[in-house]
Amino acid sequence: MKTGIVVGKVWATKRVAELPSGALLEIAVEEEDEMDERVVAFDPLGAGVGERVLITQGSVAKAWFKDGNNVVDALVIGILDEQAAVKRGKKS
Amino acid sequence: MKTGIVVGKVWATKRVAELPSGALLEIAVEEEDEMDERVVAFDPLGAGVGERVLITQGSVAKAWFKDGNNVVDALVIGILDEQAAVKRGKKS
Amino acid sequence: MKTGIVVGKVWATKRVAELPSGALLEIAVEEEDEMDERVVAFDPLGAGVGERVLITQGSVAKAWFKDGNNVVDALVIGILDEQAAVKRGKKS
Amino acid sequence: MKTGIVVGKVWATKRVAELPSGALLEIAVEEEDEMDERVVAFDPLGAGVGERVLITQGSVAKAWFKDGNNVVDALVIGILDEQAAVKRGKKS
Amino acid sequence: MKTGIVVGKVWATKRVAELPSGALLEIAVEEEDEMDERVVAFDPLGAGVGERVLITQGSVAKAWFKDGNNVVDALVIGILDEQAAVKRGKKS
Repeated sequence: MKTGIVVGKVWATKRVAELPSGALLEIAVEEEDEMDERVVAFDPLGAGVGERVLITQGSVAKAWFKDGNNVVDALVIGILDEQAAVKRGKKS
Repeated sequence: MKTGIVVGKVWATKRVAELPSGALLEIAVEEEDEMDERVVAFDPLGAGVGERVLITQGSVAKAWFKDGNNVVDALVIGILDEQAAVKRGKKS
Repeated sequence: MKTGIVVGKVWATKRVAELPSGALLEIAVEEEDEMDERVVAFDPLGAGVGERVLITQGSVAKAWFKDGNNVVDALVIGILDEQAAVKRGKKS
Repeated sequence: MKTGIVVGKVWATKRVAELPSGALLEIAVEEEDEMDERVVAFDPLGAGVGERVLITQGSVAKAWFKDGNNVVDALVIGILDEQAAVKRGKKS
Repeated sequence: MKTGIVVGKVWATKRVAELPSGALLEIAVEEEDEMDERVVAFDPLGAGVGERVLITQGSVAKAWFKDGNNVVDALVIGILDEQAAVKRGKKS
């Protein structure tokens, strides 16, 4: 999985029918020093801009949906607890 | 998923039979500061050069097609609304 | 597979039900000169911060679980022996 | 999919039996400004060095083969028409 | 597929049972100018340090094994012939 910060949402009125309705979050993926990569993930948890989330990708994301016809390849699977940031790089 | 800008089309007269006929768009994938990565995606939505699109990749793209014999690993699944660009990085 | 160093843990109280309970390790993926990439992997082996681990990713990670409904796309599959670091780049 | 230029071939006399016999092309993957990435793809179309090709990757490449036991994760699925290069970045 | 140079081996005494016993090679993946990326691949061919190998990744690697319960996502599928290096970038 990857962690990232929600930086916005995207809307697509013109879309394939197999893209489920619901929030599509634009997420800045976290690496050590940079956050250049952007991923758009379907969000069933209601994360807001600025929150730190956990995402899963690829066929694993698609398989989460009951409807096997969806086209989702990235999914928010958790909203990270505030303390997580503090604990990074320290013994826990 | 990833967002990107359509920068062109590609044509392949010589091709395997399992590459479906239809538009093959060359897409500049968006990251924070750069757009170096190029992906070619099958487009069932009629996106034009300059439009901002949403793509899905890998086996998830292939599974969208009714014909399971296709070789597509990237698919345009939405054309982003104009406002999307404005809302990037702001609370929504 | 990839090797990496455990740099922390993440907690997500708000999560989808299909994220199994257990340790979620934040891992710095090893390349030759840098360790910029971060991956969060489910850990069934009890690795601690600072240990060097082996991870598998994608649908291969998900398939390890008995419960096919899980959303895990990265899994710790080994804790590397101490000597491994010494042997890097030398004939074995 | 990705576009790339064929830069050579590779031969492996010592190989697993599930690697099909046929051409294995070394391909320089195209990004905007650079072509650093190298992929080796199985080529059923007879592309030559210097030609621009379209490749598909991952399980999608493997699934193209009638023999499900193959280990191919990258496949040439088209040879791009000459004009394609001219049209890059222009309205079509 | 990817080509790479074997740079070492890794050992993991503490491991999940689904990691098959056998050689786990640390491989420097080849790009045009650099070899920064490291992948650990299961090797059924007996490659030694310094040899140039061909690897396949993801679910394609896992599917090679008779035992579908394995967790391998990278596999050595060929040892490249010596001449391969000479032929890079030249007409063949």
